[in-house]
Amino acid sequence: MMDKQAKHKIKSQKLKEKVDSHVAQAQTERGVVLIITGNGKGKSTAGFGTVARCVGHGYQAAVVQFIKGTWDCGERTLLEQHDVPFAVMGTGFTWETQDRESDIAAAEKVWREAKLFLADPQYHLVLLDELTYMLGYDYLNKEEVIEVINNRPKNQSVVITGRGAIKALKDIADTVSEIKDIKHAFKAGIKARKGVDW
Amino acid sequence: MMDKQAKHKIKSQKLKEKVDSHVAQAQTERGVVLIITGNGKGKSTAGFGTVARCVGHGYQAAVVQFIKGTWDCGERTLLEQHDVPFAVMGTGFTWETQDRESDIAAAEKVWREAKLFLADPQYHLVLLDELTYMLGYDYLNKEEVIEVINNRPKNQSVVITGRGAIKALKDIADTVSEIKDIKHAFKAGIKARKGVDW
Repeated sequence: MMDKQAKHKIKSQKLKEKVDSHVAQAQTERGVVLIITGNGKGKSTAGFGTVARCVGHGYQAAVVQFIKGTWDCGERTLLEQHDVPFAVMGTGFTWETQDRESDIAAAEKVWREAKLFLADPQYHLVLLDELTYMLGYDYLNKEEVIEVINNRPKNQSVVITGRGAIKALKDIADTVSEIKDIKHAFKAGIKARKGVDW
Repeated sequence: MMDKQAKHKIKSQKLKEKVDSHVAQAQTERGVVLIITGNGKGKSTAGFGTVARCVGHGYQAAVVQFIKGTWDCGERTLLEQHDVPFAVMGTGFTWETQDRESDIAAAEKVWREAKLFLADPQYHLVLLDELTYMLGYDYLNKEEVIEVINNRPKNQSVVITGRGAIKALKDIADTVSEIKDIKHAFKAGIKARKGVDW
């Protein structure tokens, strides 16, 4: 009978062959569109993690925050130290403002800033944090948003976060991850934690 | 008939009441255990995003990398500039080494370093990147890992990433997010991109 070590070696070998063949096949080099959607925790955090990674390699990245951005965020403090420009809608959550017209005006204003980043090849990565809501609520013109993202510089990647990404957005994405909420501390009465949740 | 603006106001008001009531109920303050699992892209990235957030607030964080860590990562370069200590298993993927015994020795070695972070209240946050595989493969003693995490300093939070988190780990977690792979650029032949994927 084969021992654990030998079995492990065979299993690992098969996995290695599979991974190596995928790596060999993946030869197209260009910027990608990555969507992180779903109702679970970690969407914006993954977006900001990607920005940190990009900046760590010495590339330039830009951040556009739809909805969030009115309060003190650790990630912003850190990334601004590394010259990452932030365009922030900054009106708070739409359920706080309760005013559709002013929300739309604010969304359009920050979208104009986003378009400058999305036209500028110096940015290796643009994070459009919580853009999905702007399309879901019809705050921004869907066709225009899709067109601008499609026409971005060839080597620029875009990360889009937020719940309920619309189909048209998923269609143009190269990678779509959906985060499911299995369990959430907040629902168990634990307060959102500085340095972890914000 | 109500116009769009009025409807939006009522809907937003209800949502605001719901959110405010949840916030009022969440009063427990302590460090949390957050697991980011599933087969989709963004697990480690969300983990590193949380570290960036933590460091941005001026707290100390530590990173332990199981499996990954042999190559140049943007996030590591950035976070080491902010005095985040890294303990790295650094043997590469287990399917690359194909040697169970040496993998176990490497896992145990980095786990000893992890335990120092998990006993030290100066760390507001400890990221255990890809710990799940060490438990799934039986490289580390499950009971010991659970016990050490449970006995960590009260205000310390822990983020655990990786596919296939075992039940015992999910049971002690406050928050569990599962990332589903809906679409992946790599499968469409697009090469992993520096500053985005690593």
